[in-house]
Amino acid sequence: MHANLGGEPKFMRMAIELATSNVVSGVGGPFGAVIVKNGDVVATGVNLVTGTNDPTAHAEVTAIRRACTALETYELTGCSIYSSCEPCPMCLTAILWARLDTLYFASTAEDAAEAGFDDSHFYEQVALPFSERELPTVNFMRADGLASFNAWRTFAGRVEY
Amino acid sequence: MHANLGGEPKFMRMAIELATSNVVSGVGGPFGAVIVKNGDVVATGVNLVTGTNDPTAHAEVTAIRRACTALETYELTGCSIYSSCEPCPMCLTAILWARLDTLYFASTAEDAAEAGFDDSHFYEQVALPFSERELPTVNFMRADGLASFNAWRTFAGRVEY
Repeated sequence: MHANLGGEPKFMRMAIELATSNVVSGVGGPFGAVIVKNGDVVATGVNLVTGTNDPTAHAEVTAIRRACTALETYELTGCSIYSSCEPCPMCLTAILWARLDTLYFASTAEDAAEAGFDDSHFYEQVALPFSERELPTVNFMRADGLASFNAWRTFAGRVEY
Repeated sequence: MHANLGGEPKFMRMAIELATSNVVSGVGGPFGAVIVKNGDVVATGVNLVTGTNDPTAHAEVTAIRRACTALETYELTGCSIYSSCEPCPMCLTAILWARLDTLYFASTAEDAAEAGFDDSHFYEQVALPFSERELPTVNFMRADGLASFNAWRTFAGRVEY
């Protein structure tokens, strides 16, 4: 349990207002996110899925991309993210890859599910072994795939992340 | 268990070759993906994380975004994805949101972990309740967040996905 992490209501209000105003914009779903560093907003994002034909353009992913562009980095250590809703597994893992310090969220995945979004269902699916997921999944040519990792291990110029 | 789904070696070879050639390109990690519809390649993607300052630009996400642009849609029903490596939870969930029919992968998350990537670790983290994850996470202002979903429910022009 992570106690005493604070959480600034003004940034969460901003994320929720972005989510609500995005509904009538017609570009996507009711989700907003704000990335903060040292008390300042670095970037914001809203859900752009249907308006931009990008199923990965959730509010958190959009905010992470913009924050990384703004700060010219692929890691957001030292930043927090405020999301109007609990991130789906895609966005949560994007937050982990981006090395954000703290996640704040308002609505829950259950609230999203009640509004018609698959967040809770996808959490259940992702936790299963691939052979038990609804998505038909096949693992083959594993030995061939190792060639790419061998190339990586021996490449002196690799940038690890 | 999903049996008899086939899987075309030529598309997996393409994904693996993209992954291997991406190593020396210097734009990202050793990962490649190919999206196929009716036997034709719709889009390909490689990992662009470090070269483009985008921690979400994994091979699968990149391929999904390009396929959606090419097909002018936010859903890839009727398409399969071939990935040189088992998708991380971000990419797996992107595949679920994109409604792809089938996932084929070669290397496993364990192979990726041995090469220094956090895929397996992130699967473990995503499966935990948020209060037990390493990422400090705070849920607050839940009641305020519901305003965005209420706006969504009453907006006649919403496009569901």
